[in-house]
Amino acid sequence: MICLDHNATTPVLPEVYEAMLPYFTEQWGNPSSSYKFGAKLKTVIETARAQVAELIGAQSRDVIFTSCATESNNAAIQAALKANPGKRHIGTSAVEHSSVLNYCMTLEKEGYRVTYLPVDREGLLKLADLQNAVTDETAVVSLMWANNETGVLFPVKEIAEICRARGVLYHCDAVQAAGKVTIDVSRDSGMQADYLSLTGHKFHAPKGIGALYVRRKSPFSPYLYGGHQERGWRGGTENVALIAGMGKAAEFARKHLPDYEKKVRPMRDALEEGILGYPRPSDGRGAGGEGIPNTELNGHKTQRLANATNITFHGIESEALLILLDQEAICASSGSACLADSDESSHVVNAMKPESAASRQMIRFSLGLENTLEDVDTAVAAVQRAVKALQS
Amino acid sequence: MICLDHNATTPVLPEVYEAMLPYFTEQWGNPSSSYKFGAKLKTVIETARAQVAELIGAQSRDVIFTSCATESNNAAIQAALKANPGKRHIGTSAVEHSSVLNYCMTLEKEGYRVTYLPVDREGLLKLADLQNAVTDETAVVSLMWANNETGVLFPVKEIAEICRARGVLYHCDAVQAAGKVTIDVSRDSGMQADYLSLTGHKFHAPKGIGALYVRRKSPFSPYLYGGHQERGWRGGTENVALIAGMGKAAEFARKHLPDYEKKVRPMRDALEEGILGYPRPSDGRGAGGEGIPNTELNGHKTQRLANATNITFHGIESEALLILLDQEAICASSGSACLADSDESSHVVNAMKPESAASRQMIRFSLGLENTLEDVDTAVAAVQRAVKALQS
Repeated sequence: MICLDHNATTPVLPEVYEAMLPYFTEQWGNPSSSYKFGAKLKTVIETARAQVAELIGAQSRDVIFTSCATESNNAAIQAALKANPGKRHIGTSAVEHSSVLNYCMTLEKEGYRVTYLPVDREGLLKLADLQNAVTDETAVVSLMWANNETGVLFPVKEIAEICRARGVLYHCDAVQAAGKVTIDVSRDSGMQADYLSLTGHKFHAPKGIGALYVRRKSPFSPYLYGGHQERGWRGGTENVALIAGMGKAAEFARKHLPDYEKKVRPMRDALEEGILGYPRPSDGRGAGGEGIPNTELNGHKTQRLANATNITFHGIESEALLILLDQEAICASSGSACLADSDESSHVVNAMKPESAASRQMIRFSLGLENTLEDVDTAVAAVQRAVKALQS
Repeated sequence: MICLDHNATTPVLPEVYEAMLPYFTEQWGNPSSSYKFGAKLKTVIETARAQVAELIGAQSRDVIFTSCATESNNAAIQAALKANPGKRHIGTSAVEHSSVLNYCMTLEKEGYRVTYLPVDREGLLKLADLQNAVTDETAVVSLMWANNETGVLFPVKEIAEICRARGVLYHCDAVQAAGKVTIDVSRDSGMQADYLSLTGHKFHAPKGIGALYVRRKSPFSPYLYGGHQERGWRGGTENVALIAGMGKAAEFARKHLPDYEKKVRPMRDALEEGILGYPRPSDGRGAGGEGIPNTELNGHKTQRLANATNITFHGIESEALLILLDQEAICASSGSACLADSDESSHVVNAMKPESAASRQMIRFSLGLENTLEDVDTAVAAVQRAVKALQS
């Protein structure tokens, strides 16, 4: 099996796995208990919190654990709205993850006005559009760091500056950025989002554990009301094992961030060149690559995650191509896994190229640490065969 | 270590642990993906859903997975309120878990009127009080099955009947009941709650996974808005491993329910008799037990879970006693772990005996499958020593 769909999820690292196991076995206490057998687990949670905080340049106390990215995204937006009951406008983009878009659409039904900022043909946001959209009525701006389908990066530092200058709260969905680019929310050099969402399973922790950064003094109110866990900001008995795992994964991601880039970018580039083709090098050494005809990159060539490429195969339905690849044990996708069971075309590619059929004829490839260049060669050959089979 | 605090959390069973591991290792796909490596995990989730459904006499399709009891409780209440936007009254009791009480208190600030039904000195609810409290303005009644601090059982079948007769939605927090008493929400013989909350870690699954039953045709709206997971009722990538674990734990709980009762009741009774004392048997065979002076049971003697006893030690502060027990590696608590870090006295015991200091002088003991009668003897001796030490 060759997985080229790491933006959907990633394997749990062996060290993450090992870090979790004690809390499924001997150390099964409830960290909120007053006796040592339970209470000592608070240390486990605080260690993990520090590890997650360090990944994003934050202080421990500004990070709470959640159950997933969806919860983090919903919670951040709701907290901002509750802090501004008089403001009934939300700014976001047309290419956000469904946990932002569907929540915003629900909020529209509740009387909020939402601006879905457009992107250009390369998936980029125009800051002028944001400037124009934000008004005194705007309670929150929710814009992602890296797009899950194309890998395109938004100018989050500039977005944060615009929001701060206008006194508008900014939530950044950094779920696809974590572990792939440097995230730094610190006041000196970083980007000053008020809220920043993470989820463990995109960087080698298991599914079922997320985190939310809340800037000191930015308003927050609980999304889950219950006990005193997470400073009273998130009721519910702590998911000790998965929290420990997410901490370890965050530590790994921080330490290996340069390696990540070095490892996945050449593979992504090789995959992309194998499909899109490439010109003969200008120094004349070596041949060009023909690639697969009628293919087209979706997303900006450079302002993009190192691991992702999103390619249109003109005239070929995504789903048919994916089935053939699956038969060769190659995993790729036509968009977010969260929406994979729907008949919808990609809202992301559609926002970039609304006039074309690209949104139904695209594949998202996203590479990961356990891929190899051999995997890429195998995948390119499989894609070539599949495309030929579908054309004939 | 002797844990007598199983209402706080329970150890993960070996078979539950084994059931989870594949989804932290080889089978790490995203179940929402279209390719087999991910999509085959849908079966894992559906198997677990059937296991959880079977534990409560429900159909699979009426169960969704959540991250914890707090989420289940919040989600059910919110769904009922959203379905009845014109109704601004909520009925609950003074002895609910903080995930119901704190949510209701928050809703009060948002303009809802909440009735906190009283309990009597034995922790019982008067159905007449509920009858009187429910009006045409009532959107939802949220009343627990079994109390987490005393084990006292509410008459859930009658509560459900009253609510149905009045056309009011009923949410039952069955978190402490699951695995301890028979739960049956089926239409023929069962209790007809509209919503019923469960969490895995109270019956030997790990912390971080819960479930919510929603009766067919009862209204529901998502609490987390995102992808299409859980029929669109709960966005967020599925916590495959912990879902598999909760399924296995539910299967175990259903199969071993009679054993559970048989195993824990004698231990609980022995513990209770050791502390409260007991009369000489009427047949004259054997002596009575003196017990520890100035102790008193909180909660009804029989309408109660088999594993729990809540005892006041008059004149002795709970926290002091718990510290001495902890020094002897005996775990017990003075109430819900979710509130253990607070200075609050037990709101449950306070609701039963408001005039006394009992709410600051009580210990909750809750037994579990891995306890033994020797544990109980050891614990009783330790409690005796601790009480003497504190009195002198």
